[in-house]
Amino acid sequence: MSINRPQDNSDLNLEQIMNDLDNKALYDARSHLHSLYPTEIALLLRSLPIDYRYQLWDIMAPEAMGQTLVALQGEVRVGLIERTAAKDLVIAASQLEPRDMADLVADFPNDVREKILKNEGDSRLEAALSYDGHTAAGLMNLDALTIRADVTVDAVLRYLRAQGKMPANMDSLIVVDRSNKYQGMVAIATILTSDVHVVIATIMDNVAEAIPENMPVSEVAAIFEYRDMLSAAVVNEQGEVTGRIALETVLDVVREEAERAVLSSAGLDEEHDLFSPVLVSARRRAVWLGVNLFTAFLASWVIGLFEATIDQIVALAVLMPVVASMGGIAGSQTLTLVIRGLALHQIAPSNAMSFLFKELAVGAVNGVVWSVVVAMIAAYWFSNTPLGVMLGAAMVINLSCAALAGVLIPLFLHKRGIDPALAGGVLLTTVTDVIGFMSFLGLATIFLLA
Amino acid sequence: MSINRPQDNSDLNLEQIMNDLDNKALYDARSHLHSLYPTEIALLLRSLPIDYRYQLWDIMAPEAMGQTLVALQGEVRVGLIERTAAKDLVIAASQLEPRDMADLVADFPNDVREKILKNEGDSRLEAALSYDGHTAAGLMNLDALTIRADVTVDAVLRYLRAQGKMPANMDSLIVVDRSNKYQGMVAIATILTSDVHVVIATIMDNVAEAIPENMPVSEVAAIFEYRDMLSAAVVNEQGEVTGRIALETVLDVVREEAERAVLSSAGLDEEHDLFSPVLVSARRRAVWLGVNLFTAFLASWVIGLFEATIDQIVALAVLMPVVASMGGIAGSQTLTLVIRGLALHQIAPSNAMSFLFKELAVGAVNGVVWSVVVAMIAAYWFSNTPLGVMLGAAMVINLSCAALAGVLIPLFLHKRGIDPALAGGVLLTTVTDVIGFMSFLGLATIFLLA
Repeated sequence: MSINRPQDNSDLNLEQIMNDLDNKALYDARSHLHSLYPTEIALLLRSLPIDYRYQLWDIMAPEAMGQTLVALQGEVRVGLIERTAAKDLVIAASQLEPRDMADLVADFPNDVREKILKNEGDSRLEAALSYDGHTAAGLMNLDALTIRADVTVDAVLRYLRAQGKMPANMDSLIVVDRSNKYQGMVAIATILTSDVHVVIATIMDNVAEAIPENMPVSEVAAIFEYRDMLSAAVVNEQGEVTGRIALETVLDVVREEAERAVLSSAGLDEEHDLFSPVLVSARRRAVWLGVNLFTAFLASWVIGLFEATIDQIVALAVLMPVVASMGGIAGSQTLTLVIRGLALHQIAPSNAMSFLFKELAVGAVNGVVWSVVVAMIAAYWFSNTPLGVMLGAAMVINLSCAALAGVLIPLFLHKRGIDPALAGGVLLTTVTDVIGFMSFLGLATIFLLA
Repeated sequence: MSINRPQDNSDLNLEQIMNDLDNKALYDARSHLHSLYPTEIALLLRSLPIDYRYQLWDIMAPEAMGQTLVALQGEVRVGLIERTAAKDLVIAASQLEPRDMADLVADFPNDVREKILKNEGDSRLEAALSYDGHTAAGLMNLDALTIRADVTVDAVLRYLRAQGKMPANMDSLIVVDRSNKYQGMVAIATILTSDVHVVIATIMDNVAEAIPENMPVSEVAAIFEYRDMLSAAVVNEQGEVTGRIALETVLDVVREEAERAVLSSAGLDEEHDLFSPVLVSARRRAVWLGVNLFTAFLASWVIGLFEATIDQIVALAVLMPVVASMGGIAGSQTLTLVIRGLALHQIAPSNAMSFLFKELAVGAVNGVVWSVVVAMIAAYWFSNTPLGVMLGAAMVINLSCAALAGVLIPLFLHKRGIDPALAGGVLLTTVTDVIGFMSFLGLATIFLLA
């Protein structure tokens, strides 16, 4: 009776499938696939090196392809679509509900998409294709069940039974007036526990607000989080109900946003395949390395300004990375807090100054504490007290500047509409490297050169 | 009819409340609070500097404190609890359902907790307090509605109506046998659309598996994700139903895990208050700076080994940060991919080797490409072709090692049960710094010194 555990399982699946494919035991591989959910097959495909992935795809039934492709994204999905015959794509798409179908056929070759549009002749598919994926409309299911406010519980129960089926995963019904304008929501739990003669208007929740079609996806996610909702009605500009957003869909969005934040801080993109060809991966990563090379040479240029000083005191070259790296670490702590604070709407113009002062104070305190430690180590190592003092002083300067940059850089990027998770780290390191080298070597030039 | 947007809103709330408090307009502040959801009040409290936060808390009604405290965590919650009178805490807790109450009273002072336990005399609270927060049991609601498999739809409908109320947000009922052993699930949608004379056993889903009480939270989250579930039954070792886990609860867990991953990579902790006192924050961050100081001095020590070489060719000191920093950037790209792959169960022993070879190849390709660029810049800058060649060669070595370290370090940490997001970055930088400086200065010592 106990459930399969995906953790233990996914590696078992992976190993078993790779073995089956190595041994050309295609029947075994296929029957193994049958025991998995589409999302699990999707995970398996994403985790397989490309040659294995395509072998496995080739033995999949077209009927199972649709849900699996929906659970994939970016490159992996496109790669599999390119490998699939047009007629199988048509079969795959035909198994899906309009929103998923619209999401998927957007990646299909033009001729196949046209064919499906003609085949289906489904106005809901065309509607779904026209929605903007970055708004509430792109998240909504078109299977919303609406009922009228002036009917009785009994009438609703009879209506539902007459329908014969109803989307699963539904916790509440949307209440509308005669012209399909949104009125409120009524929980199925309430319907089930109310007297059958009661009118819906008297038991519905008319505080529950509807989400406008054009609301950005990130706001939809925030609303679901802060209001603890399972589902919400979506309305167009006229207030007419056009669909319903379910928490499951929002959960996917939240996951993707979280992933994107982590990946973009390393200049990576969640659309990319873990196993893309070496040259493709190398070219993509090269861009980020190039950006950082610019930063690195800027730091070198700063050091180059002090060549004459280093020529006289080589110990400076030995110690200078300490100042730069400690500044980078302290700054990135502040930066991480601000990026997260912005994402959670916890940091805003009205409290930014209080936070900035606090971080500056933290930076100064840690600057002083660690500069004493670092100064003593350096003074002892090179038997040179003034050198240690200069190192300590440079660290206080750099850790304070790091705190300042850690707060101001992401706030500035955010205000300009640039994702601070993407560019924040590079800019911060540029600042802490330049100020770190400049302050240490500059102080040394002024005070230590005979 | 359109919904308030929390984004635009939270800063408006913040500014307005700070203004009200500045102007001692406590009545306005209080009535503003009344218009917010508990989760929104929690966000507001987290975002307020401490003095404002406590002023606001002092004017809150004890009845509203419970839900708000549940939506907070860590330091912010504990700070507010310490500020609240024992009798208000008792009132606050009394508004909550057992799971939330158990979560909250765990942070209460001992005497208050004892008092509530005695007051409530509720065995469900004691049960909830005994559950391990890291397992499925800690996530479950104790309000699961169970029905028997051998009754008709009509009987279920009458039973529910007789209950008079039923937890909202419920999409399915749990089916049990006479001894409360788990049998399956039945969607409320199915009950509503089936003939009233049908027996539950014939319409229930007996493939849906129950979650054992002791399943770790991260596995529960993965199951909800891969199986697209809205709720699941929880069973004890005897197979008896003890509760129900809802997707909303899982969503909170997923969010917290994502936050933790981002914060821990900078040595931070999501339990901490954004506005903790300066000295408290400074002490905490100091630990991470200390760890990194060790790394920084290790790099210095490596450079120190080549003092004599630098003394002869100062250009080495100018260029050496380029090798180290490019290695760090390339390595952290690989590291980020592996940490994410491990979290998503996408990288496992069976595909790790394929991935390692791919990353090594990517590292080598980018090493070669960028080393040519870097070598040309350096050769031109210092009019010294051999110096440029050494720099390029060191970069190829460091980028290849960075790829190797980026794959092996997180795999090793993961295997030892250490969170790779926490320690991975520091270890990686240690490797890329040491190898970067060592290879560049070492090659220079061997080939450039006269």
